[in-house]
Amino acid sequence: SAERVRQFGTTIFAEISALAVQCGAVNLGQGFPDFAGPEWVKQAAASAIAADANQYAPYIGVPRLREAIAATWQAHGWRTIDPQTEVTVTSGATEALFAAVQALVNPGDEVILFEPFYDAYLPDVTMAGGVPRFVRLHPPAGGQTGWWFDPAELQATFSPRTRLLMLNTPHNPTGKVFRRAELEQIAELCQTYDVVVVSDEVYDQLVFAGAEHIPIATLPGMWERTLTINSLGKTFSLTGWKIGYAVGPAHLNAALRAAHQWITFATATPLQFAAAAALEEALRNGYYAQFRAEYTARYRLLAEILASVDLPVLPTEGSYFLMADISSTGFRDDVAFCRFLTQEVGVAAIPPSAFYARQHDLPLLARFCFAKRDETLRAAQQRLLAWR
Amino acid sequence: SAERVRQFGTTIFAEISALAVQCGAVNLGQGFPDFAGPEWVKQAAASAIAADANQYAPYIGVPRLREAIAATWQAHGWRTIDPQTEVTVTSGATEALFAAVQALVNPGDEVILFEPFYDAYLPDVTMAGGVPRFVRLHPPAGGQTGWWFDPAELQATFSPRTRLLMLNTPHNPTGKVFRRAELEQIAELCQTYDVVVVSDEVYDQLVFAGAEHIPIATLPGMWERTLTINSLGKTFSLTGWKIGYAVGPAHLNAALRAAHQWITFATATPLQFAAAAALEEALRNGYYAQFRAEYTARYRLLAEILASVDLPVLPTEGSYFLMADISSTGFRDDVAFCRFLTQEVGVAAIPPSAFYARQHDLPLLARFCFAKRDETLRAAQQRLLAWR
Ligand SMILES: CSCCC(=O)C(=O)O
Ligand SMILES: CSCCC(=O)C(=O)O
Repeated sequence: SAERVRQFGTTIFAEISALAVQCGAVNLGQGFPDFAGPEWVKQAAASAIAADANQYAPYIGVPRLREAIAATWQAHGWRTIDPQTEVTVTSGATEALFAAVQALVNPGDEVILFEPFYDAYLPDVTMAGGVPRFVRLHPPAGGQTGWWFDPAELQATFSPRTRLLMLNTPHNPTGKVFRRAELEQIAELCQTYDVVVVSDEVYDQLVFAGAEHIPIATLPGMWERTLTINSLGKTFSLTGWKIGYAVGPAHLNAALRAAHQWITFATATPLQFAAAAALEEALRNGYYAQFRAEYTARYRLLAEILASVDLPVLPTEGSYFLMADISSTGFRDDVAFCRFLTQEVGVAAIPPSAFYARQHDLPLLARFCFAKRDETLRAAQQRLLAWR
Repeated sequence: SAERVRQFGTTIFAEISALAVQCGAVNLGQGFPDFAGPEWVKQAAASAIAADANQYAPYIGVPRLREAIAATWQAHGWRTIDPQTEVTVTSGATEALFAAVQALVNPGDEVILFEPFYDAYLPDVTMAGGVPRFVRLHPPAGGQTGWWFDPAELQATFSPRTRLLMLNTPHNPTGKVFRRAELEQIAELCQTYDVVVVSDEVYDQLVFAGAEHIPIATLPGMWERTLTINSLGKTFSLTGWKIGYAVGPAHLNAALRAAHQWITFATATPLQFAAAAALEEALRNGYYAQFRAEYTARYRLLAEILASVDLPVLPTEGSYFLMADISSTGFRDDVAFCRFLTQEVGVAAIPPSAFYARQHDLPLLARFCFAKRDETLRAAQQRLLAWR
């Protein structure tokens, strides 16, 4: 095999999900809901298939979906965007991220990642020949209310060789939602060093308890240098549909499209029509508020369950995930703990060390997904109680 | 944008399809059927969506689809393959080709392409830093019955730096089906020079008039060094579903999977279940023979129509396409001719020069797609007759 793939193992999600199936564990590992997406969206997909919307879509995405994405940005008060030149549909956010980095990073260019980072970002960078530079996110301690980074460390990570910064807000795995002041520092440095931002905002509708999601593209001077990546999977509980998209200025979309046309060319046509219907209808029927309310209840339930077995949780501001402190378990290694929990206790969780490139000074945590039915969370509770 | 994408224009398919829509032309350009896929396959997709098969698939593909692919190879008498390690599902053949080249080619490695070639192959190679080497396919002349290449030219193209050969049989755009003796020469050279073959066989069920499709992986010594790429799109007239796959030995699949997991991670789950149903049922209900018979009729009809307006066709052994000789039209440039035909005559066709890297000594041809309803082909006939 080629050098660029030689060092890769299998993603931690595949490993833990396989182990969960094998052991019959309650799967709070990989981030996906165990309940159905909205009936009206499923109906829209069935209708598109029946109506023979089954041949190649335009490679940039079907017009109706690009228009629905533009209408969504408008309705959120973010920006008026041109569906013809400023939106591209991709085969999931995963492809959008990969294509964006291929389109923007030359070998030797530096790319800044906040660490921990969603596991695909590092291969995205190295497969393009980019050089990763890391800024550590620290768990809240003392007076802190959320995960934080050292502004001086961020500043020192920028250099004339920095080409890209990959942002993720709400952040996986920490649940951090970047605050305006933090985004402002990032924005200022990116403008000073002429750096482009690829911002993964797939959990934008999953923010809790007063946290506010701010797309970095909406900050002054940032539209021109930001590709905002999103997808339908998390927001509509249909992670298997793999409809993603990138929003940004025409010049960045043109670069992304140049790569995308050869990577997958186009994305499943009938699911694009259903995605359009989902976004259109969600703006009319109060979907997002209800979605957030349901997730707030799930988040609270899982937090209570974990706390009740002496796995204290860190505050989550957004995303599907809770981070729990495992220092009282006796384990000194999150991978060993998560394997034990999956195999012996029957509850699957993800070790956050999988999201770190540098394995020193890691907090001792496990990541649990609360995108689950009440009965699933209760079943996990039974097993955790039997163990503790 | 990064160097690797800077020179790319838009694919010729997007350009001509957009022009066809704009001019109301009968679209015989981009290769897709204008009729529906089988009702039973569409039903299977609707059922999978209703049954909530809508979360992430395993990144290598759902087991049932991998098993159906293995059963298909078995039924065709090609090989017994292990669905766990020897098949990977991708987001269309396009992604499989891109991922295979990313997984196998290091910067500076040489990759052999037969020219003309499907337009994505060259970007696949250059985005991986590979160096393309071309072997010319020549149109039949004199006693020849099909497109041919010079064996000495093929031999001279191999070198110790050759890493990969990209084969395409049945071949787009020429309609050539590689003969056993040709495949044997390729196989021998690949073994001598330790070269891997990526063989795009998406038209394997579309062979006509006595031509026989032979997967190069079935030749002695070739299984171990071949990734065979296929998809459901052409075979089931559902080009917009983007379900592709790669079949090959475990070590080549492992390399491909290492790339694939970061490129798209997984492919639309409900459409994978429908694809499995399609392959399973096709082995029972005589689908392939009927499919071939219908396409043979379409091929004959379009060949007659083109010949009747003094656009003599070259023999097509397989694929969706006919190549017609345009030398009697007065045009000396196939792009100008295809633009004229689309805009002025109202029939869209693809200029084969888009499939050549070296623009010298090209035959003067246009590519027409016959994956169309009779009434579409008849409408094209009316317009062609009005012009000639
Ligand atoms: C692409 S599978 C991973 C799903 C996910 O986003 C997560 O679990 O972090
Ligand atoms: C990916 S769009 C091109 C369809 C096709 O295979 C062709 O027209 O050659």
